[in-house]
Amino acid sequence: MPETPFERRTRAAQDRLRDGAGDALVLFPSRNLLYTAGFDEEPAERHLLLFVPAEGDPVFLVPELYGEQVREESWVGDVRTWADDEDPVAALRSVVDDLGLSGSDGAAGDVADGDVPHVLVDDTMWARFTFDLREALPDATFGLASEVLAPLRRRKDEAELDALRRAGAVADRVVTEVRALGADAVGMTERELAADIERRLREAGGEGIPFGPIVGSGPNGAKPHHAYDDREIESGDPVVLDFGTYVDGYPSDQTRTVVFDGEPSERFREVHEVVRAAQAAAVDAVEPGVTTGAVDAAARDVIEEAGYGERFVHRTGHGVGLDVHEEPYVVAGGEVELEPGMVFSVEPGVYLPGEFGVRVEDLVVVTREGCEQLNDSDRGWA
Amino acid sequence: MPETPFERRTRAAQDRLRDGAGDALVLFPSRNLLYTAGFDEEPAERHLLLFVPAEGDPVFLVPELYGEQVREESWVGDVRTWADDEDPVAALRSVVDDLGLSGSDGAAGDVADGDVPHVLVDDTMWARFTFDLREALPDATFGLASEVLAPLRRRKDEAELDALRRAGAVADRVVTEVRALGADAVGMTERELAADIERRLREAGGEGIPFGPIVGSGPNGAKPHHAYDDREIESGDPVVLDFGTYVDGYPSDQTRTVVFDGEPSERFREVHEVVRAAQAAAVDAVEPGVTTGAVDAAARDVIEEAGYGERFVHRTGHGVGLDVHEEPYVVAGGEVELEPGMVFSVEPGVYLPGEFGVRVEDLVVVTREGCEQLNDSDRGWA
Repeated sequence: MPETPFERRTRAAQDRLRDGAGDALVLFPSRNLLYTAGFDEEPAERHLLLFVPAEGDPVFLVPELYGEQVREESWVGDVRTWADDEDPVAALRSVVDDLGLSGSDGAAGDVADGDVPHVLVDDTMWARFTFDLREALPDATFGLASEVLAPLRRRKDEAELDALRRAGAVADRVVTEVRALGADAVGMTERELAADIERRLREAGGEGIPFGPIVGSGPNGAKPHHAYDDREIESGDPVVLDFGTYVDGYPSDQTRTVVFDGEPSERFREVHEVVRAAQAAAVDAVEPGVTTGAVDAAARDVIEEAGYGERFVHRTGHGVGLDVHEEPYVVAGGEVELEPGMVFSVEPGVYLPGEFGVRVEDLVVVTREGCEQLNDSDRGWA
Repeated sequence: MPETPFERRTRAAQDRLRDGAGDALVLFPSRNLLYTAGFDEEPAERHLLLFVPAEGDPVFLVPELYGEQVREESWVGDVRTWADDEDPVAALRSVVDDLGLSGSDGAAGDVADGDVPHVLVDDTMWARFTFDLREALPDATFGLASEVLAPLRRRKDEAELDALRRAGAVADRVVTEVRALGADAVGMTERELAADIERRLREAGGEGIPFGPIVGSGPNGAKPHHAYDDREIESGDPVVLDFGTYVDGYPSDQTRTVVFDGEPSERFREVHEVVRAAQAAAVDAVEPGVTTGAVDAAARDVIEEAGYGERFVHRTGHGVGLDVHEEPYVVAGGEVELEPGMVFSVEPGVYLPGEFGVRVEDLVVVTREGCEQLNDSDRGWA
């Protein structure tokens, strides 16, 4: 029987554990769990944990009401359930005993006598679950699962790239439609335009959104993480439009800063040109072997030379995959060397409090020779 | 200047800390943070932490790009920012030093000499942040913030109840509209009906949804946490419809199991009657002083007597507030005593794998005499 991609990834993670990374991974509902187990669920208050020991088969501990679903959707064979009237921590103890992590029995695969087990927990695991793990494994040391999984997840395979390309095309199409609203967008509230964008993303084939659309008009655009509010878009307003959508589980994420109608200020025209030049410079810098810090610097240098360095208050980009924010992060001083298959955003911005913001963002894939852009819609403001 | 409700709640939490619960709360983006700081944000990979010491004023440590927004939206005065090219853990160390939690300086409010600081972290804080806190506070012991915040959050005030009532009315209206589709629903896929429900919730005044609508038709209804898929609804199918929407930050959550068209099986009619009787018995049991376990038993007894005890695979209900799942949990053996102002779901169900599922759910508020139901739409299947 051919392995699923999920099993293949889990086996690769086990190789890394045996190479010295640790004795087990413990995952909970997250993109790491989807990546390895093929099971997609939101974090919730019930214990739902996947144990991946360095050797042997993984064990899924799940609430009884998820049992049937997990058995159907995941490749993992050893699924153990606990009911709402049972103690999930007792169930958890029993799993770590069986896997020989607690040192309390003689199971094969045991942590060698005298060795302290090292357990890598999901980076986003809730404190209530890490506390229970610490109680069940009082002698263990703990690390983060990303030590093992991030290096696997950051190089995308062809199926992943295909989904990312299609997600990018949906975002491109919708931003082109929205830009074409022109004067019709004047008088709409940011909230109305955000709802319109969500509807268009669905109609264009998007399958849900990784974050609520950002519609930052006029001074609202100066807050980089403003979502939308009831401000009405005015003629001459710069409007930051930052959104994306999932296709086959992979998201798009792109930003354009547009003026729907009327004439923006001279200062905005200047800042928009600076940001576009910075964005283009960073994209040009992308190729295998270059560091994330060098890509960041390529954008940052352009903005600093134009005198807006202090108004570029965030990193240049973030990796994109099952998580819309994941490794590699494109930050000042970043030392990760780019490799073919990495996908990340390039999104410099300049924010002038009380006036406006400008951000331009595309996703890129590192290729053997340089990079491929996953977005190609118009980057101008007009 | 009058205190905001957020400041009032934070001060109440500090009272509980000083009463012996601990030396500080550390929150991160969560409903606990919204409840105390008035700041609403999704968890993300950057350090965004609110430190609430037992004495004195809280300190907000936030990424630079959130600075302006946090200062505008939260009542907290001491907002410290860190930039993407700075080390957030150094910033974190500096805050815990200033608050006298690390024992490394002589600040007022210090943990007394020889005492080990006890720090309560947000229950849903990601492992990567709790690990950093443990590093910054190697001598501290840790607990969960819910020890202090859950008792405050589980009794709702009038403003909260008002929002919950309005959210319930929106869900009632939409389930009534959807039921009226009748034979028009036959041939729709679950996915189409879920999208239709989402649209109707928005049009009826809902402000986003706490979870994707569940449309579990025929055998899909037998998986309690099935969301929806591409199965077409058939004549005679039982369909589990479980959804809700936010109003002013508070969600509704209700379930009806309906048959849009045609005649369901005799077995379904019987099971539906059992579940309705169980649900009514549990609602009848609700009054101050009764335990959550007694409410669970009221429903469970009816289902067990009818011979379906093993097919009721989940708890009877969960508290509802800023989180759609929060304390008190209505579970077998639950020892929480009901108090006026508590709000929770009453939602027994019976699941027959391969056949169908039945669940009926309303939210209730505990009142001085008994309870008030927040949903009053038709509970029958026809």
